[in-house]
Amino acid sequence: MENNIEKELQDSKRRFIRRNRNDHSSYAQQNLGSSSRKAAFSQSGQKAAAEKPERQKREIRRTPVRIIPLGGLNEIGKNMTVIECANDMFLIDCGLAFPDAEMPGVDIVIPDFTYVERNADKLRGIVLTHGHEDHIGGLAYLLKKINVPVYGTKLTLSLVEGKLREHGLLGKANLNIVLPRKTVKMGCMAVEFIRVNHSIPDAVGMAIHTPAGVIVHTGDFKVDYSPINGEMIDLARFGELGSRGVLALMADSTNAERPGFTPSERKVGDSFEKLFSKAEGRRIIIATFSSNIHRVQQIINCAERYGRKVALFGRSMINVITTAIEIGYLNVPDGVLIDIDAMNRYNDEQIVLITTGSQGEPMSALTRMAMNDHKKVNITPQDFIIISATPIPGNEKFVTKVINELMKSGAEVVYEAMYEVHVSGHACQEELKLIQALTRPKFFIPVHGEYKHLKKHAELAISMGMPPENVIIGEIGNVIETDGNKINIVSQVPSGRVLVDGLGVGDVGSIVLRDRKHLAQDGLIIVVIGIEKATDSVVSGPEIISRGFVYVRESEELIDNAKHILSSTLAHCSVQEFREWNSIKTKLRDALSDYIYEKTKRSPMILPIIMEI
Amino acid sequence: MENNIEKELQDSKRRFIRRNRNDHSSYAQQNLGSSSRKAAFSQSGQKAAAEKPERQKREIRRTPVRIIPLGGLNEIGKNMTVIECANDMFLIDCGLAFPDAEMPGVDIVIPDFTYVERNADKLRGIVLTHGHEDHIGGLAYLLKKINVPVYGTKLTLSLVEGKLREHGLLGKANLNIVLPRKTVKMGCMAVEFIRVNHSIPDAVGMAIHTPAGVIVHTGDFKVDYSPINGEMIDLARFGELGSRGVLALMADSTNAERPGFTPSERKVGDSFEKLFSKAEGRRIIIATFSSNIHRVQQIINCAERYGRKVALFGRSMINVITTAIEIGYLNVPDGVLIDIDAMNRYNDEQIVLITTGSQGEPMSALTRMAMNDHKKVNITPQDFIIISATPIPGNEKFVTKVINELMKSGAEVVYEAMYEVHVSGHACQEELKLIQALTRPKFFIPVHGEYKHLKKHAELAISMGMPPENVIIGEIGNVIETDGNKINIVSQVPSGRVLVDGLGVGDVGSIVLRDRKHLAQDGLIIVVIGIEKATDSVVSGPEIISRGFVYVRESEELIDNAKHILSSTLAHCSVQEFREWNSIKTKLRDALSDYIYEKTKRSPMILPIIMEI
Repeated sequence: MENNIEKELQDSKRRFIRRNRNDHSSYAQQNLGSSSRKAAFSQSGQKAAAEKPERQKREIRRTPVRIIPLGGLNEIGKNMTVIECANDMFLIDCGLAFPDAEMPGVDIVIPDFTYVERNADKLRGIVLTHGHEDHIGGLAYLLKKINVPVYGTKLTLSLVEGKLREHGLLGKANLNIVLPRKTVKMGCMAVEFIRVNHSIPDAVGMAIHTPAGVIVHTGDFKVDYSPINGEMIDLARFGELGSRGVLALMADSTNAERPGFTPSERKVGDSFEKLFSKAEGRRIIIATFSSNIHRVQQIINCAERYGRKVALFGRSMINVITTAIEIGYLNVPDGVLIDIDAMNRYNDEQIVLITTGSQGEPMSALTRMAMNDHKKVNITPQDFIIISATPIPGNEKFVTKVINELMKSGAEVVYEAMYEVHVSGHACQEELKLIQALTRPKFFIPVHGEYKHLKKHAELAISMGMPPENVIIGEIGNVIETDGNKINIVSQVPSGRVLVDGLGVGDVGSIVLRDRKHLAQDGLIIVVIGIEKATDSVVSGPEIISRGFVYVRESEELIDNAKHILSSTLAHCSVQEFREWNSIKTKLRDALSDYIYEKTKRSPMILPIIMEI
Repeated sequence: MENNIEKELQDSKRRFIRRNRNDHSSYAQQNLGSSSRKAAFSQSGQKAAAEKPERQKREIRRTPVRIIPLGGLNEIGKNMTVIECANDMFLIDCGLAFPDAEMPGVDIVIPDFTYVERNADKLRGIVLTHGHEDHIGGLAYLLKKINVPVYGTKLTLSLVEGKLREHGLLGKANLNIVLPRKTVKMGCMAVEFIRVNHSIPDAVGMAIHTPAGVIVHTGDFKVDYSPINGEMIDLARFGELGSRGVLALMADSTNAERPGFTPSERKVGDSFEKLFSKAEGRRIIIATFSSNIHRVQQIINCAERYGRKVALFGRSMINVITTAIEIGYLNVPDGVLIDIDAMNRYNDEQIVLITTGSQGEPMSALTRMAMNDHKKVNITPQDFIIISATPIPGNEKFVTKVINELMKSGAEVVYEAMYEVHVSGHACQEELKLIQALTRPKFFIPVHGEYKHLKKHAELAISMGMPPENVIIGEIGNVIETDGNKINIVSQVPSGRVLVDGLGVGDVGSIVLRDRKHLAQDGLIIVVIGIEKATDSVVSGPEIISRGFVYVRESEELIDNAKHILSSTLAHCSVQEFREWNSIKTKLRDALSDYIYEKTKRSPMILPIIMEI
């Protein structure tokens, strides 16, 4: 395996030399220092360094590799990283983030693709670590602009297919299934897929073989010694890489604040077993993430043992589970799954519903059930409901509301951590240490997390003996460059967030958001006047129209007084001002704003509209 | 003590009889059933029941007492309960709640006072359990309408004074300090104050002595065996009351989901001790709730031991601590407190800052420090920051943002539960069981919490042997009536939330909120046209103005096309429609809305404005 990779790297280096000889104006030539250019051809030096990094004394400079995070650093979500070496680059993941309260009306947030678009000619492909939205959700938006090959495991690409179909891109896309321990060439680099455990099957980390050395990227991961499908994280390969020399490690920081080990997914199965027994005679409803196929597998296994049928609720649950069955990732005994409409042929104690809505999402199936707004399911005291998830930060209030409503209908609801009905998909501190110990990297770049997570993760590596100067806590847009000897942030590329609202990608910017927030806070007052050009006089209005400000029928006096103030302001305007409307608009806005603030202590948006007649 | 109360009750009953004899049209007469009216005079029966509830076999009906929660049930905050008996009523607490994401622009939420206002002639007073906003924050709004005597402990009333001063009500208010174990007469009822522990000093629960029996209300409470000021919850009095017979218990459900005991406030002091030692040589900044005076006391004690000076930051911190010192509730050795401006006379290792902002409130002192926006404090790697609080649900993201920003400035930030830098102010399950065991109530009404908390609390009482039919999980507005034998929800009074926005109380209702949310989601498009009455024709426009919709300069084509569609819609309107503007408005709105949705998948608010010329 390793020999193959090395052979491929040698081939790639030969091609790289040819390309550079032919094209002296190439980006790589322009940007690489002369010494590193020389080093790129010094094959023997590179080989020695890769195999015996500890013994190396003399500084041998090699073709530098650049790591450019465009998302997922100092934030949760929209994970995306550029890896670039000489004239080649590729992407790891292309995810989305969900908008926060500061982005009203926004549907999703994707990374700024500017840097990738500018270097589209160098882009060799996109490798995906797993099929969660924060790793694949931005892909369709990128492929619309640059159609490059996409590489991922079977389940990941099946989920990508669904997304691309929605965007009408499936026909054009170039999707390539890669097995763990297999390698994909990316110009002068090669990406090796390494199995990891996570809250979705078929997740991988990556070993990126570059002229400067091997970079290990864990992707989102945890260590599960007893995974449901038997496919454990490939710790042996991480160890082998570490033994041969890892230049840099990029590792998932999501749970870096949590001590200990994340429990195995199997723990949840044990809890289900107990709860199924407790729920005897009642209908069972379980809400979980549709992509957690191993959890669904455990529910199905439990259902079969307890003689229950399983019905699926929620669009994404039905889609993902159907896909998982089709590609053989979910093992469903004949007759266990039933159609929603067949439910009424069974008694409560013969049924399990698996549904979306574990985050209390307002439009989800579980929320509609809780609000008595679901066509097929009425919640009653005969229901035993398990919320098999923990709220993602920001969703706590939604989840609580759903729990309260379900309980008001008399159902028993199990949701606390004490029941172990959920385990995290991310590594805790002891697992993070394990990966450090196995890979023994020279440099460490904590990824996937807010600053506090990255910081904790960095401290953890330093506590294990890594020199602080070998740890890089980066920001998106940083160009982190290493030639095998040193690592530095050398420059900055465009980066940031692009807001998607409906069909609009990027047309909601800071001004639109500022206006939306202003409108939400105190509403709007529109002042309309008509001015006759011939006489420079007001012939119509001022009229006042408001929305989101006060209930007008109960505030007649306020509105009448406001009109008087506007009229009197207009009466004091000069003829000159009647020709220069901006001045009138400003005067009207100021006069009204002062009056309204004095009377209400509110600052609605004020829009004066002048019609010329 | 008890004898005094009984004597007072007898006196009150005599007065009650006199009043009813004189005023046959009184509310009590009209509303009480004849049997209960009779029972109201049956003094011997009442006495026997109060003293020996267990032995009572024969059903003796007594003047029923009505418990009407107007806030704090099925919600966190705006706690307020009406207690009513015959012709008398009083209130326990009058709090506010903070708005959620569904109430943009709203400052605070207070209870609907309608029922209290309608019965103002019966209102004998307001008793306060403690000085937190969710228990006293609505008081000024109520006193503006009905000025009745207010009763509370010393610190509680000192905090109320501050509020009333802001509202210009202090001169008029009738505030009466009551000591624990003392009793306040409320017509035919008497309210006895009983000390409890909580995250603010001087908190009390209450024993309400009524003709129907004794009702115990815990207020917000916890059991702290080692409180900072030595004043432990008066478990003995709760036990004495239980031994003599408690008709109903109303108890704090906030932590009913949590097993075990809430740790003593002293634990936090122990943690501070360790952290002060760890922070040697650095400046210490501690964020906590200003009202947690015992915590501030512990910080001051630590500061003195470590030879540090203390400076206070944040308006409420300065106000509350100044009040606490004035009334002797905080013991500050001479020279420990320093003015903010004197800070620069000391080195980092000689200073502790105590600040507001532990919830990441955007305008708070700590948030401004984190955002490099504080005039007096710059965060550096020389800072050791302790966030001595846990985020209230809904504030998680704010707190995380502040932590990330503080860390980016290089400061060490301590915030996790593992450091024990915060303990709850509310009783966990074992403490709740203790109160049940001490008071041994006949009926139980869990209060202060969302439905899931009330439910868990009810289950807890039932698990201790209480018959399920003796537990009432109520809703606000419920009239819960008990005559000593039975307890029932007998009717409903107006209740709900009143939104305060600036100076407006109640003028932001569902329509205004709906418009604000609509505007926040997709913004606004205004269409202006001028119609000449004489010719029934469009002489001006259509003009389009938008806010919060798209960035107009980059969407010229969309706006131009929209204008064409509007013009063409107008061209197809009949002369009749030009006289009937509503029809034109509807047509314009529909045409534009369809076009915009098709092109953008957004639904901005569309406001057609027609000016007559």
